[in-house]
Amino acid sequence: MSASPLDQEPSLTRLSSAQLTQLLRRIFIRHGTSETVAQVLAENCANAERDGAHSHGVFRIPGYVSTLDSGWVNGKAVPIVEDVASGFVRVDAANGFAQPALHAARALLVDKARSAGIAVLAIRNSHHFAALWPDVEPFAEEGLVALSVVNSMTCVVPHGADRPLFGTNPIAFAAPRADGPPLVFDLATSAIAHGDVQIAARKGERLPLGMGVDSLGQPTQDPKAILEGGALLPFGGHKGSALSMMVELLAAALTGGNFSFEFDWSGHPGARTPWTGQLVILIDPSKSAGQGFAERSQELVRQMHGVGLKRLPGDRRHRQREKSKENGIAIGAEDVANLYRLAGE
Amino acid sequence: MSASPLDQEPSLTRLSSAQLTQLLRRIFIRHGTSETVAQVLAENCANAERDGAHSHGVFRIPGYVSTLDSGWVNGKAVPIVEDVASGFVRVDAANGFAQPALHAARALLVDKARSAGIAVLAIRNSHHFAALWPDVEPFAEEGLVALSVVNSMTCVVPHGADRPLFGTNPIAFAAPRADGPPLVFDLATSAIAHGDVQIAARKGERLPLGMGVDSLGQPTQDPKAILEGGALLPFGGHKGSALSMMVELLAAALTGGNFSFEFDWSGHPGARTPWTGQLVILIDPSKSAGQGFAERSQELVRQMHGVGLKRLPGDRRHRQREKSKENGIAIGAEDVANLYRLAGE
Repeated sequence: MSASPLDQEPSLTRLSSAQLTQLLRRIFIRHGTSETVAQVLAENCANAERDGAHSHGVFRIPGYVSTLDSGWVNGKAVPIVEDVASGFVRVDAANGFAQPALHAARALLVDKARSAGIAVLAIRNSHHFAALWPDVEPFAEEGLVALSVVNSMTCVVPHGADRPLFGTNPIAFAAPRADGPPLVFDLATSAIAHGDVQIAARKGERLPLGMGVDSLGQPTQDPKAILEGGALLPFGGHKGSALSMMVELLAAALTGGNFSFEFDWSGHPGARTPWTGQLVILIDPSKSAGQGFAERSQELVRQMHGVGLKRLPGDRRHRQREKSKENGIAIGAEDVANLYRLAGE
Repeated sequence: MSASPLDQEPSLTRLSSAQLTQLLRRIFIRHGTSETVAQVLAENCANAERDGAHSHGVFRIPGYVSTLDSGWVNGKAVPIVEDVASGFVRVDAANGFAQPALHAARALLVDKARSAGIAVLAIRNSHHFAALWPDVEPFAEEGLVALSVVNSMTCVVPHGADRPLFGTNPIAFAAPRADGPPLVFDLATSAIAHGDVQIAARKGERLPLGMGVDSLGQPTQDPKAILEGGALLPFGGHKGSALSMMVELLAAALTGGNFSFEFDWSGHPGARTPWTGQLVILIDPSKSAGQGFAERSQELVRQMHGVGLKRLPGDRRHRQREKSKENGIAIGAEDVANLYRLAGE
């Protein structure tokens, strides 16, 4: 996520969450999704924009549209939910988006987690083009601990290798706490998220060292050199690389989905969404021994502030969410005009 | 883990795995453990030494001994296993070591994972003083995917904070593959493992920048300055810090164990083992859709080698294991003499 300079710009339009969701919904439907898929994706994208997660907000809409128009993803896919075991749910997303697949399996997964104490959801044959935190945060709001991983498309060079193989392969985690919104993080196992490289390229900004390499495998600070034949590096050297490998194994090998290097979209010009898999693990902390989990996580927060930590993971998003609720979601007037154009209005 | 220069030294003693395990077993029993606890800890420590994981091998024995002698940990503790739900097992380690607690719950946990598809083990009131990969690798050898986290003792400054709070809080992962030993990694969420700082201090070596701070919170490359009132930094900046926070929540808040900052061993001079908790998650990949998991992970390995990766996580340990099986485990003669002294022989 990047901080946006939008708030300082003059030509802003302010939309309510409901207004933005409705506008995005019309765009999705116009480009061939079902009503259900449109609703799920529109809420997801509007919530990212509302929370200031601009790299996964309306910035993503042209990518969604070109992918749908290319026929690469099925916008009308109906996910097939399979109840495999007392703690295991599988979903075949049927070449549709991952979020409607999660939506379709959600109630069953929560029931299983509350009954078995832990449950896993293995989504395959799915396209994930959004932030990962919206997939875990709602579970924590219901008192569950949630962990999710999704693999993406080859753009990260494994530590010690010469050429890219892994995706940006994020890990997201959410846990309830007593006196505030859930503790939530969503981290790409690449040194930088792909969306942030695209945003830097669009703005003409340079990146810090250690983020990526150019088409010859040489270190570069030019986001365009990374996007045009270059690649990203994992965060934290061999450790981030090991975690990225784990994400491939959990999100693809364990779900029956594609690895980040397995799909071929060359027959679908305009395709932008990785066709892979996603894993979600829920744990019911009411099964734990001792004091209530939410009180314990609140104690950890208190101690983190006590050693001088100013900002918790998720704090910036939660503050921006409050601001957006009060004043509306601020979007550049030109971007809003583009959205209306995509909606055919 | 550090590569050891021992193999180049002249005064080496070579012991078989069985000989070393028996020697360590006698040390544990002499210092007050039960036969069961002695066997579990001796095998664990001998296996680490066998695999070249010297920072968690016989190097740890004086720490075990001083902890046992101090009365801080109960070497005769009998873990209490609680069957909480179809996917949830709790163990009260009864102020004993974590490994015997895992050992006691192991069969039940594996049964639950195979039946429910996923299962979680929450160990509390436990002391973990060993490497974490030995806790997950055996599950992968049985065809299960395993993930474990353990918190430790305050020595890592959260990213953005002034003072230490988190432990080194490792994450270990193991997954089966078709044509070789499991894929296994074990990574401290600190920039360096505590054992490696101790080894560097003993050898008088300097550390790379970014590993730790001195007692004034200033960056330092002196391992002694880190050990004497200083602290470690998380790996990978805010991302490693977020993962370390997650480990506190999973290994302590979710188990009913202590956070890394909660125990007070000041009444037990010589105490060295953190009194916290541990979480283990097992997933049965036979519940997955599509091709067998082990074939899929083998395909990932093939592709990783294809992009130029020379060494997989765990490769160095597995190679050293073969060497040790062939030639015996090479230990400095002085270290072996010390071990016999601790065994009272």
